[in-house]
Amino acid sequence: MAQKPSIPKGTRDFTPIEVAKRNYIFNTIRGAFETFGFQPIETPSFENSETLMGKYGDEGDRLIFKILNSGDYLSKANTEAYNTKDSNKLTSSISEKALRYDLTVPFARYVVQHQNEIEFPFKRYQIQPVWRADRPQKGRFREFYQCDADVVGSDSLWQEVEFIQLYDTVFKALKLEGVTIKINNRKILSGIAEVIGASNKLIDFTVALDKLDKIGEEKVKEEMLSKGISQDGISKLQPLFSLSGSFESQMESLRTILATSKDGLKGIEELAFINLAISELGLTTATLQLDVTLARGLNYYTGAIFEVSAPQEVKIGSIGGGGRYDDLTGIFGMKDMSGVGISFGLDRIYLVLEELNLFPETVNKSVEVLFINFGDKEALFSLKAIKVLREAGINAELYPEAAKMKKQMTHANRRNIPFVVLVGEEEITSSTYTLKDMTLGEQYKVSLQDLISKLK
Amino acid sequence: MAQKPSIPKGTRDFTPIEVAKRNYIFNTIRGAFETFGFQPIETPSFENSETLMGKYGDEGDRLIFKILNSGDYLSKANTEAYNTKDSNKLTSSISEKALRYDLTVPFARYVVQHQNEIEFPFKRYQIQPVWRADRPQKGRFREFYQCDADVVGSDSLWQEVEFIQLYDTVFKALKLEGVTIKINNRKILSGIAEVIGASNKLIDFTVALDKLDKIGEEKVKEEMLSKGISQDGISKLQPLFSLSGSFESQMESLRTILATSKDGLKGIEELAFINLAISELGLTTATLQLDVTLARGLNYYTGAIFEVSAPQEVKIGSIGGGGRYDDLTGIFGMKDMSGVGISFGLDRIYLVLEELNLFPETVNKSVEVLFINFGDKEALFSLKAIKVLREAGINAELYPEAAKMKKQMTHANRRNIPFVVLVGEEEITSSTYTLKDMTLGEQYKVSLQDLISKLK
Repeated sequence: MAQKPSIPKGTRDFTPIEVAKRNYIFNTIRGAFETFGFQPIETPSFENSETLMGKYGDEGDRLIFKILNSGDYLSKANTEAYNTKDSNKLTSSISEKALRYDLTVPFARYVVQHQNEIEFPFKRYQIQPVWRADRPQKGRFREFYQCDADVVGSDSLWQEVEFIQLYDTVFKALKLEGVTIKINNRKILSGIAEVIGASNKLIDFTVALDKLDKIGEEKVKEEMLSKGISQDGISKLQPLFSLSGSFESQMESLRTILATSKDGLKGIEELAFINLAISELGLTTATLQLDVTLARGLNYYTGAIFEVSAPQEVKIGSIGGGGRYDDLTGIFGMKDMSGVGISFGLDRIYLVLEELNLFPETVNKSVEVLFINFGDKEALFSLKAIKVLREAGINAELYPEAAKMKKQMTHANRRNIPFVVLVGEEEITSSTYTLKDMTLGEQYKVSLQDLISKLK
Repeated sequence: MAQKPSIPKGTRDFTPIEVAKRNYIFNTIRGAFETFGFQPIETPSFENSETLMGKYGDEGDRLIFKILNSGDYLSKANTEAYNTKDSNKLTSSISEKALRYDLTVPFARYVVQHQNEIEFPFKRYQIQPVWRADRPQKGRFREFYQCDADVVGSDSLWQEVEFIQLYDTVFKALKLEGVTIKINNRKILSGIAEVIGASNKLIDFTVALDKLDKIGEEKVKEEMLSKGISQDGISKLQPLFSLSGSFESQMESLRTILATSKDGLKGIEELAFINLAISELGLTTATLQLDVTLARGLNYYTGAIFEVSAPQEVKIGSIGGGGRYDDLTGIFGMKDMSGVGISFGLDRIYLVLEELNLFPETVNKSVEVLFINFGDKEALFSLKAIKVLREAGINAELYPEAAKMKKQMTHANRRNIPFVVLVGEEEITSSTYTLKDMTLGEQYKVSLQDLISKLK
């Protein structure tokens, strides 16, 4: 009954070196989250379906993985749906639980459920996998990690300032230079829509504007026209298409365009505050850039919108994003909790570090020393030394059988173990160890104390 | 549309302090795994159903969480099962994936699938959640972590020796004294069954024997009789019921009982090897104990069987276990891969450390210093200092708004933040910081350099 083993499409096994590289990124992000005062929480992998359904739009609902009820689940099946074989309608009667689709909705649920234990403002981070029944493609998986940090219970703009610094801190720690943190503000977008008389077409407008980089000015204008935005309105946008120069000079142009919009001016004021603070505090590796076309998750964000681009030489989408949402917990009945947060795209950051060769060499280091096994007596003598080495924090092991020397040396080579220790009759008698440096090919006879210093 | 938020039964949210405590245990175990030369792998949360189904017995099959296919899943439903509303039979036609039930079967699948990349013997560890549709009860959850270390591709008994040392190392690092590592050998159990003429009743025999502690000698004998084991056979067992004394003296009694069983003597020889090595190497906190009644997972183990008991003062079941299985990967068509491994029970270890008050005090430490916010100018000055503190590895944050002083101090207290910094007009002018020790109530005026040294 042997089966040819495989895993579901869109999922991945991670080998030791891949786990080590992923943990290097996770640990860097986690470390930064903690120095910035964020605290970890974890939520269950599956939630009650009603917690998730209806929170991500129709497309989201379709992409949520549902878990079949246990036991005789058909006994509670919706009769009408069953008789008409309506999959969509039947689901809620045979499935009560669903896999987490993102970390934001479970976080909102957590905040509401634990509101009496939480001390607000609450700065939480969460690094956990999510699942989406998306069509798998290059860089898109059905199981992937999200790394989120959010603050709820404060509408202070200092949080936005902190998040920009947090991004900078993480990318500096990862030695990733040339990252651009793009920022926009929902209020600027609604201000523009207001000014051109398209407030009721805000989404159409921003969807079109968002394509400026890809399809160019003319095509964007055509799309806006086709969506019913007036030629007159579009003309007023002209300065927008040629926005360039420094953060400050772009802000100046925007101030002119938005002079008549209260909302728009508020957005500019917020951006100016953030920009001023950041220029006072300074960024180490990243650059802050105003991008008026930035509109991601528009229905959701109410203030700042962030998106992080990888260095230009790497052709990859955004490696992070976030923003402010004024009503995170309203869906669960808790009003007026302003939240702001950012996310890191683990898989894409991994690809970027790989492409730029930025993983530290030591990430691959697993075992530092392998003791060759010449027989039970030698093995026991070796294990006594190995015990001491491990207590000193050195990753050490004994080859498990007294196999041929060549086989054991090959094993050490294949595993990139940098040192090998040989213990025979002579070494036991003299309480010494023959240490072989696998890179240089040299070998020395050393005491246990020297062995520790050499390997540390 | 507000919903009263809740989570599925048998699942848990983890608050920051709980995450910190769990990570303390995870990191301790992970650190020990790595110093012993184990390498991490990760496998997907869900596997193809055929990978898991049929591997854990009928009960296991029922307890596996199945994931409903996406889209119009009923279009491929098994017609007969659908028409007869047979839940059990329908499942495989509407669900192709299932959540991981343990880490061993996915590991076996991984080894077979990646056999050409793996350098054997392969020492892997894996710390990931598993899911079981079990009835939730105290200490039993539907989502919980397993922490496994296994070696495949070596039948050397040095591995068993290493695993006992590994247990000792972890419990020493956790400062958990009084742990007992119980060991048995499947060959001893089959030897005993052979000697009393009940080889074909090995399972009945061991199930009964396993209850010795709980129901006593007489009841165990009754159960054996009722299962068809002869009176004569049971009499031969008499010395077994009174086995006591040291490891060595118990082994002597066993040698007499098992004198005629080749298998049994082999088991004794293996145990003697392990016991001798361990007494040479020494254990720091744990005690190794022979327990002939130990039979866990019998159908699975072929050699050593381990089980770890918490210190006697804590009334809780086993906190770990494992053993050797000679055919780990046979189910996936790869023969003759001997494996041996152990597991740590995270949730129970957590309860034990909690009960014995063994979590280090620092585990709770999140933010070391909160800067009180007196307004934008002071906040900016503070953030410049905070940036320097963070670069020095100190977890620091700014209260996000210029709220009333009392509110900000209360916030620091509620979050157990040990230090607060006050920056006003005077401090800005003199480039100093007023540091308040929240425990002692004292405060000092210090330079930035002093602030760093004080907080480090």
